[in-house]
Formats: sequence, C-alpha cells, structure tokens
Amino acid sequence: MAKTDHERTLIDFRTEPSKYKHWKLSVDGRVATLSMDVREDGGLRPGYELKLNSYDLGVDIELYDAVQRLRFEHPEVSAVILTSAKERIFCAGANIRMLGQSSHGWKVNFCKFTNETRNAIEEATAESRQAYLCVVNGPCAGGGYELALATDYIIMADDGNTSVALPEVPLLAVLPGTGGLTRLVDKRRVRRDRADFFCTLEEGIKGKRALDWGLVDELVPRSKLEETARRRAAEFAPRTDRPAAARGIALLPLSRTIDDDRITYSHVACTLDRERRVAEITVTGPAAPPPPALQGMRDLGCAFWPLALARELDDLILHLRTNEEGIGIWVLRTAGSADLVEAYDRLLAEHQGDWLVREIRLYLKRTLKRLDVSSRSIFALIEPGSCFAGTLLELALAADRSYMLSGARPGDSRPPATVRLAGLNFGAYPMPNGLTRLASRFLAEPGRVEKLKVLIGKDLDAASADEAGLVTFTPDDIDWEDEVRLAIEERAAFSPDALTGMEASLRFGGPETLETKIFGRLSAWQNWIFQRPNAVGPKGALGLYGTGQRSDFDRRRV
Amino acid sequence: MAKTDHERTLIDFRTEPSKYKHWKLSVDGRVATLSMDVREDGGLRPGYELKLNSYDLGVDIELYDAVQRLRFEHPEVSAVILTSAKERIFCAGANIRMLGQSSHGWKVNFCKFTNETRNAIEEATAESRQAYLCVVNGPCAGGGYELALATDYIIMADDGNTSVALPEVPLLAVLPGTGGLTRLVDKRRVRRDRADFFCTLEEGIKGKRALDWGLVDELVPRSKLEETARRRAAEFAPRTDRPAAARGIALLPLSRTIDDDRITYSHVACTLDRERRVAEITVTGPAAPPPPALQGMRDLGCAFWPLALARELDDLILHLRTNEEGIGIWVLRTAGSADLVEAYDRLLAEHQGDWLVREIRLYLKRTLKRLDVSSRSIFALIEPGSCFAGTLLELALAADRSYMLSGARPGDSRPPATVRLAGLNFGAYPMPNGLTRLASRFLAEPGRVEKLKVLIGKDLDAASADEAGLVTFTPDDIDWEDEVRLAIEERAAFSPDALTGMEASLRFGGPETLETKIFGRLSAWQNWIFQRPNAVGPKGALGLYGTGQRSDFDRRRV
Repeated sequence: MAKTDHERTLIDFRTEPSKYKHWKLSVDGRVATLSMDVREDGGLRPGYELKLNSYDLGVDIELYDAVQRLRFEHPEVSAVILTSAKERIFCAGANIRMLGQSSHGWKVNFCKFTNETRNAIEEATAESRQAYLCVVNGPCAGGGYELALATDYIIMADDGNTSVALPEVPLLAVLPGTGGLTRLVDKRRVRRDRADFFCTLEEGIKGKRALDWGLVDELVPRSKLEETARRRAAEFAPRTDRPAAARGIALLPLSRTIDDDRITYSHVACTLDRERRVAEITVTGPAAPPPPALQGMRDLGCAFWPLALARELDDLILHLRTNEEGIGIWVLRTAGSADLVEAYDRLLAEHQGDWLVREIRLYLKRTLKRLDVSSRSIFALIEPGSCFAGTLLELALAADRSYMLSGARPGDSRPPATVRLAGLNFGAYPMPNGLTRLASRFLAEPGRVEKLKVLIGKDLDAASADEAGLVTFTPDDIDWEDEVRLAIEERAAFSPDALTGMEASLRFGGPETLETKIFGRLSAWQNWIFQRPNAVGPKGALGLYGTGQRSDFDRRRV
Repeated sequence: MAKTDHERTLIDFRTEPSKYKHWKLSVDGRVATLSMDVREDGGLRPGYELKLNSYDLGVDIELYDAVQRLRFEHPEVSAVILTSAKERIFCAGANIRMLGQSSHGWKVNFCKFTNETRNAIEEATAESRQAYLCVVNGPCAGGGYELALATDYIIMADDGNTSVALPEVPLLAVLPGTGGLTRLVDKRRVRRDRADFFCTLEEGIKGKRALDWGLVDELVPRSKLEETARRRAAEFAPRTDRPAAARGIALLPLSRTIDDDRITYSHVACTLDRERRVAEITVTGPAAPPPPALQGMRDLGCAFWPLALARELDDLILHLRTNEEGIGIWVLRTAGSADLVEAYDRLLAEHQGDWLVREIRLYLKRTLKRLDVSSRSIFALIEPGSCFAGTLLELALAADRSYMLSGARPGDSRPPATVRLAGLNFGAYPMPNGLTRLASRFLAEPGRVEKLKVLIGKDLDAASADEAGLVTFTPDDIDWEDEVRLAIEERAAFSPDALTGMEASLRFGGPETLETKIFGRLSAWQNWIFQRPNAVGPKGALGLYGTGQRSDFDRRRV
C-alpha cells in the first residue's frame, strides 16, 4: 500500500524556528507567545489537509522544538502564552483523516511523542520555571483541549463560539490520545461524573459551566482576552528564578549522517542489523575534561558534551522509534573514560543552581525517560573500554537487563570493565514514576540505595557491581559470546507486542504519577481501542469520519 | 460459529463444595487445605481437556466459592494452605486450548474474574485475617504461579521437578493475565531486570535462585513439604483475631429465577431491554428492621438483609458480565425505606469488631468494587420511593453519573426523592484505588469529605444533594423523561470499546494500588495483546500452541 511507502520516508525531528510552517514564536521581554497557525497544505504526508488548526506529527515536531528552544535560548522568558493565531478556532486536535489513514504503529508512536511534548511543557513550568498558560480564543477540541490541559492556567473566551471539548468517544470511537482523560481527573481533578458527561459531549462545554466544573481557570470577554493573558503572564513572571539578564545558548543544527545502516553523530553512533533486528548503539564519553569554569561551558554552548549527548541521544531515540519499527532490540554500549564522565558529572552536580546546568540536567532526564517509555527491548553491554559512570550508568540502569564482562578478554590489554556510581545517580534523573532508577531497582530494600552512596566514585568490577545489584549478569569471557548472542536472538524471536506489554509492566514498579498513568493505563487502553474494529475496521468510526456514513459497531461489551 | 453458541450457554456462578469437580476443601482445626485437583474432562465447555491442573472459568468459579465459604462458614480457620492434589504438577495455569478457542470478550472477562478472586485471596489474608499460604509441590507455571503470588507465603519443593515460571511471553505471545507481572515487581518487588529475565524463560526458575530472587519465600526438600506447611500455618494461626469457637454462617443456595428478560432474587431484580441494550436493576431495601442483637443476625444467617443483598448483587453482576455482553448500560434504582437501610447500616457500623459483621462489610465492599471494574456504563436514577441511603448510596456514587428527580411527579403522592449519607460512606467501602467513593469524587477538595459528615443521617432533597456534590443532574418532572431517555439512548449509541477505555480512565483518579494497576495498566495491555494478530491471528502463538506449527510474527514494534 502507498501508505506504507509514505511511512518509510524518513521523519526528521530536527527543525528550527526559521523553518516552522505551523507555529509563530515571539518573545517580548519575559513573556513569549507561541501561536498555532497550522498551514492546511503543510501536512507531513499527503492525503489530508490540516484544517481548523488540526495537527499531525509535523506540527508537533515544531512545537517540541519550540519548547526546547524556549528553555535554552531564552533564559529570560518566564512565561509562555500558548494560543491560536487563527481568527475563529483554537485547535481542532489531531487530524482525523491523518489518523484514519495511518497504520496502528504510526498512531501509537504519534501519541507517544505528543504525550512526551505535553509532559515537557509541564516540566518546563514546574522545573524550568517557565510557566505555560493557554489562551483559548476559539473552539478547542480533542487534542486542542489536551494541549490546553498541559498548561498550568487556561483562560477561555466567554463568547458564543468558544468551547472546550473532548469529543473523541462520541465522534470517533477512540479516546483522547494525549493524556486528556488522566489530566481531567488527576491534574484538574474534575469530578468523575462531570468528566463522564463532558467526555461524551460532541459539542463540548462553554462559558460559566466550563469554569464551574474546573475545565478552565478563567473566563473573560473576547475583547479582554489579550489584556488578561498579558496580565496573568506578568503575574507569573516574578515567580521564576530564571535570570532575566542571561544570554541563551543557541541550539545549532544537529549534525548527523545516515549511511545505509549506520547513523552517526559526534558522540553517539548506531549500527542497524536488520536481520537480527538489533540496533547497536555506542555512546562515547567526553574527549577532554570539562572547562574549569561555568563561563567555559557557556562558551561551548551546544558543543558542551552533556548537552550534545542529550541532543544526539534524543534525536536517535526519536529516529529509531519512528523510522525503524522493525528494530526491536536496542543494545547500549559506552566507550571512553569514566574519569572524564565523572568530571562532567561533578560540574553538573556542583552548579545545579545555574540555569543552564539545570536545563542540561533536565534535558538528560527527559532523554533517559524516553528510553523508559520506548517500546523496544533494551540491553546494556558493559565491556572493557566502556565508561558506564554516573550519567552514563543510567543507560545500564534504564536497560531491561545488563551483561557485564567479568575479567579481561584474552589479547585485550585493557583492564576489565568497571562501572561507577556518581551523585547524579541518586536524584538527578528520576523516571516517569518519580523515583530514581536506583530506587526503582531496589524497591524491595529501600535502605539499600542509601547504602550504595559509599560506593560513589569507586570503580566496581563485575563481582562488585553484581554484589551491589547494579548489573544483571556477569559472564566471563568463555560464556560471554554465547550468552549474549543467545539472549539477543531469543529476544528477537518473541512477539514484539507481548514484549511491549511486558516491558511496560515491569519497568515501573512503585508509585504512579500522571506520567506513568498516561503511558501505562491510558496509552494501553488507547492502543487497544486503536486495534478494535469499532474504531479502525471498515465500518469503524475513525475511517468513516467525514464520509457521511454511519459506523456499525459491534455492540458487545468487552 | 459453534463457539458463539457455547458462549450463549448461561454460565452459573453458584456452586457449593459438594458439587466441586476440581477442588478439595478440608478443614482441620484452625487450618484449612484447599487442594487443586482439576478433572481433565470437567471443562466448562467442550473442545479442551484440563490437563496438568490447568484451569478454565469453571475451575475458578469453584475457587471463588471456596474462598467465600472459608470466610463465612469457617470463622475458626485462620490459615489456608493452597496446594495441588496431583502427584507431579502444581498447576499449569489457564488452559491454553480454552484461551485459543475463546472470543476476545470471553478471554477478557475470564481474566477479570480470576483477577477478582486473587484479589479476594489477598483481602482474606489482610482483612479477614485468614492467611493464605501456598505449597508449590510441582511445576507451577503461568496462572499457577500467579495463584501462588496471590498468597502471602510461598513454600516451594526443592527437587529437580518443581519450578515457578511465567512463560506466557515466550510460549504464547501474551502476558500473564492474572496480575503476575504487577505482583512480581510491586508485591514481591523482584528486581526489574531479574523479572525481565524470569518472564522470558519458558522453563522458569527452580531451587536456590528462585529463593534468592524473591520468587518464593521458602525452599524445602520434598519430603519436608507437608510438615513445613503445617508448621508455617500454625505460626500464622495465632496472628489472627478470628474466633476459634464461633459457629459459621452457611451460605445456602442462592435462589434466582430467570424468565426471558427478567432476573429475580429476593432483594434484587433486573429487567433486560435488549433493544435499548439496557439492564434496569432495582435493589430493594430491607422489609423489616434489623434484629435487636447480634445473635438475631447470626440466627438469620444468609437471610440477613445486607448479606443477602451482597450475594444477590454479586451474582447479578457476574451473570450480566458473563452472559449478557450485549447489555452495555446498567441503570441502578433502589426502592424502600431509607430509615430501614440506615438501621442496618448502624448495626454494621456499631459491631464492626464482630467477625461476621466484618465479613459482611467486606463482601459488600468487594461487590461494590466489581461495579467499579465492570466494563459497563452505570447510571443511577434517584426517584421518589427510592432509598439511596448509606450502603445503598454507594450504588449512586459508583455510577458513572446519577440523575435525581427534583420535586414530585404529578399524581405521585410520595414525597420527592432524597438521598442520605451514613457513617459507612466514609470508610467502609473503599474502591480499588484505596479511597472511598466520596474521596475519589472530591479529589479537588480533600476537606470537603470531612465537611459532609455534618449531613450524616439527613434527608437531602435534589437541591441539597446537588449542592453537596452527591448527584450529577437534578432535572424536574418536565425535563426528566427526555433527559434520562436521551442520555441512555446516546450512551447506547457510542462505541462500547471507547466507553470501556473512557470509564476505566475516569473512574480511578488519585492514588494507584496493586489492584488499580492490575485492572488498569496490566489488563489494558493484555486486552491489546489479545487483539493482536501475533497472539490471536491465524499465525498467532495462542492459536498455534500445541499444533507443532511455528508462529509467524509481525516484527514491527508498536
């Protein structure tokens, strides 16, 4: 089918404001405005028109880029107004035709990325102290309202035209796919019976009831919308600790080469073995010590190793998820000096109050979280020459399992592999469940994480790492080859779907958060519905939307 | 297809020990033994043999019955040993042929019921102080190990034959469907990388590694199994507060008549409107005041109104879920005297220390929880003559929404409808998320629940109930007919799948528990996998199991 060919076109997540088709980003002192102005003919793939500010992945890639740049390039911005540049519409949500013509995998991956971006908006508000508020200046439906829900303050026009709605269930027989149901009852804590009513209303809710039910935070006449938004943004501004006078760091175009089955960045490289369905990913540690002072880091800008690493790994994960769905196993290796990694970690730890250091740490956190929610099996291989230390040790802790070579290889003059804990492993990079990877790992022995702190900075060989519980298996050279090869072959032979469900269940023990609820519960239900004939079958609502034909549902409850 | 016809055969959840085909229940002083001894030819439907202590719904219905009876009929029992009566096998899990030939709906409903029974085993241990321990005396795989995981102490034979395993992913391309993954990382807190390895091992893990990894609690030579089990059970026994000398309450056969589209019990009646896809359920309050003393309650036995109500409603929910999947909406009404309901509630509140009162309250709690996890839209209609008070008010609070008639109906001499809070609404009946229905309702205003206590015992008319936030809508007589009819018609027109996902997402705001993780996250993933060709397609693993043919998987990761 033609569809499949379109999907094979590589999707590139790299963009920049001068290339935006769908968003306008403007900065006025401490307040930025991000206006949605979707170009109808600007869809990522042919076959649909992006009417009424509806969006596809291309629109969301730009939003993602804008959210990133606002953090790094605009330290002075403390409030972001999210609104629509169209006259009569805020946003109609994800484009339905696009969904209707997309494969199951595309829909699921699209929802995952849009969810991650909305989570990043909330994280920007909470952690980067760059508060998002939303001005709903026209009908706001489905993914449009879910975008509003990701901001911390929703101002709605009180006119006859503007409403908020989650019409997916009545209109399309699917769920709002971007966290809407969860944010409704868990973030805004709308009463469940009202949420039930609201989510079955095609036309949505406007005016006073929207305010009374907690669907929006403020209702103002259309003529006062701009003034109110500016005032609220000005009120948010002083609550930040972002430095008004600092200079931003330009996120220069990320250089990447793709040759056949090899993807190369400065510090990250990936080789695809399509037959074995494996991506062999190697992260290279820093080549030189960090600059002695913060100014040196600022001068390096996006070439500063931790930031470059975050960007490259982030891009690779998105690339593999979207463009290489046949590659089911990601094998992670590192190469370089643990001492140098530790030196950068120390800088990130000692200057965590600096706005740029904070942004880099948050970016690394978000990137590692992408691993946690990627539907791929992740194995870490810890071998001589590697540098699984501190921040890079998180890669091994994020893996579904790890293999560490015990002892040296004959003929290899390098010392046996070691791993090294750093302070950053104990708090800098929480998972979506809010726990560090160490805490998630040792749920059975909460005190154990604290005890591990005595090992910070020490090189742990395979036996010590095993005793510390940091690695899964520690075969020696005699067993390594067969054990690792068999593990990968076996994994590749299992059903990808069963692995996805299993990994999503095992990775997140312990507490649940808005994020784990969205990626666990909500996404799983949505994935199920995306497979059901009532939504996607020939008589399903998603495919028939706009054709004038009525859906013919299987009425049995499951 | 023939399969569909089999499914139309009514499944009856009512049984008793003398009718058991698959379990042996024996009581020896304070210790009971529940032995699994599945009859190969005793399957609920034709087409499969229940080899190796594998189970189908029929086996689980007996287990459910035994767990219930142990609570009510055996107040003296403080520990239950769960084991296998077969010589060389503990339990091979759910029967795979049965799963392979079952419809999607059947599989999902089967898993829901088995999950509820395992949750009830955990609740019996924690709340009824009747502790379950498991003696694994042979290979214990899939649902077999999940059954063991539901107990609080697992003793495993240390021989060459006995292992524990969750082989669903490698063998069948599905997930363990009865809470296994969740209990592994969240209850037993097995390290996630070890859980990952374990869940991909067809052959499972035996001996010392099973103990070291926390998969079992004790490892003993086969010859010492019985003695150890008895000793551990004897150690559990003194920890209980169950009265050794009390006499149990016999759960006499539940009388029920099914005439065409009407199901009638003593206090519960249900009329099915298949065209509108609605079940109209009416719960009748008590006909007379409760007996003045506890002895009177004991003398009444299972005729005591709250216990009779719990049993009847429980049976009706199970009947509708299993036998009436085309009925998507359950409309709940009550009829009777709020004063009488309150009188029974007072008895249940004042004597909560009594073992039988505790059991009745727990049974009501479990029954109400079944409503919470039922994939049906639930509307409560509150009209003149109703008695939504205390325990019965929970029905309205469990509903997705409620409609309360404001004022009287012309020609109806009865006073306008009222609702009434009682002490039991504030703690006796927590939902699967661990919160009361009131607390779940008012997540946005935690203090509000406390404030509602001043209303206990007061009759609240529609306006007051609305102000208290207890009901969704309060139309008057002029609007009632159209508003309620349209709401039901609209609901019936939506996609059942989308409603299921929506309801599962909106009903459980706030904290997550083992139970919500199982019914939300795990079940949703399993449902998704149960729809995927890799599991259930013509080349899927579930259908090909045992045929010698290899599955042909779609290798794309979703």
